[in-house]
Amino acid sequence: MATAQSPRTRYREQTRAEIKDIALRQLAEGGTAAVALTRIAKEVGLSGPALYRYFDSRDALLTDLIRDAYADLADAVVRAAAALPDGAAPRARLHAPTGACRSWAVAQPHRYLLIQGTPVPGYSAPADTLDSARAVLGPFLAAFATAEPSASVRPVVDQMTEWAAKDPAVAEWARVYVPAGAEGAALAGGVLGWAHVHGAVGLEVSGQFTNMGHTGDVLLRAQVDALADAFGLE
Amino acid sequence: MATAQSPRTRYREQTRAEIKDIALRQLAEGGTAAVALTRIAKEVGLSGPALYRYFDSRDALLTDLIRDAYADLADAVVRAAAALPDGAAPRARLHAPTGACRSWAVAQPHRYLLIQGTPVPGYSAPADTLDSARAVLGPFLAAFATAEPSASVRPVVDQMTEWAAKDPAVAEWARVYVPAGAEGAALAGGVLGWAHVHGAVGLEVSGQFTNMGHTGDVLLRAQVDALADAFGLE
Repeated sequence: MATAQSPRTRYREQTRAEIKDIALRQLAEGGTAAVALTRIAKEVGLSGPALYRYFDSRDALLTDLIRDAYADLADAVVRAAAALPDGAAPRARLHAPTGACRSWAVAQPHRYLLIQGTPVPGYSAPADTLDSARAVLGPFLAAFATAEPSASVRPVVDQMTEWAAKDPAVAEWARVYVPAGAEGAALAGGVLGWAHVHGAVGLEVSGQFTNMGHTGDVLLRAQVDALADAFGLE
Repeated sequence: MATAQSPRTRYREQTRAEIKDIALRQLAEGGTAAVALTRIAKEVGLSGPALYRYFDSRDALLTDLIRDAYADLADAVVRAAAALPDGAAPRARLHAPTGACRSWAVAQPHRYLLIQGTPVPGYSAPADTLDSARAVLGPFLAAFATAEPSASVRPVVDQMTEWAAKDPAVAEWARVYVPAGAEGAALAGGVLGWAHVHGAVGLEVSGQFTNMGHTGDVLLRAQVDALADAFGLE
């Protein structure tokens, strides 16, 4: 049963949301350097000290924006994977999350670059960012349940197999998506898939691929198909 | 014959170099937002107006740093390609420039992120940045002279073939590196190779791949080997 929130709590949540909306607009307009608590306070009609009751530092505000972005992206990825038909081929299971990442990023480059672009100077991400990244990456792994890695990608599979053998939490996470024995291939496929997304989408949303003769969707699909080939995915 | 520079010209060049050294240190310490002409002027012992005689805006200084970075990176790539033995296999011709990019970037992440990271808010790169990028990318193309693209990468080859057919300057540039008829495959291989470099190296130098169980060199080599497979390179 949902508990009714007190007016005070509702007001607090509304104000936090308003602060984050302004911060996102500043981010879109001028990058992370433009996110400034003093200007936000002025716009939202709070004194500086009053604003600090909502976010006690710029880092705390950035952390919230980063968590939101990862959660949103994970949601998009999970929804794309869930929308696949039951008998979808492994290759389609890989295109679903990679394509969802691209669509999400292209629609809001500032949020993609916040979580995957140049690190914010002086900012340290909290430890739970790794969990957020795993929520995004999980559906990638599912595509590699029956992978047969080629010699080219084998060195990454070997490193990941060793990692999973040393770190039970990693192996356990991988086994949420693939059967025992496939952890190394799934982790390798996941990290390679994510690198492909970043290579294609990161350059696209930074404007580096403007006037290069190709389109972003075709480039990413080709990368992902070549990756599927390298893992023997149907 | 080298012309002796006047003391005045030498002094000017020395001062410009000193300004750029300080700017690079600011960039390494705090990202592009930390590059500040006023603080540079103070450190180098010039008044603000005097500094503007060397760089008439922050953008002009950033442009110089970006040009230097592309020129350095192109130099590293060209040297790596030139160091290959005459009969080097196409696959080795691809590993040489991609590996050189990674070494260059890992040694100086701030310079890699300056040219390939999150765009600097409000800064517009000059038109000749495309030429600089082409100088880096050229040696990638040479690996694809005898490529036989797989179905997976064919859509990018088709887009690039169409681009080269429409833009004679692009086709001419590609033919510096590959024979006529191979332009589309070479351009596609080049852009895919660059996306692989960015995917692997961009995430590595941003610290996104920390504690992920793999090493940056193995990941990039696997990506490039899979790309070589996709283009049928020996």
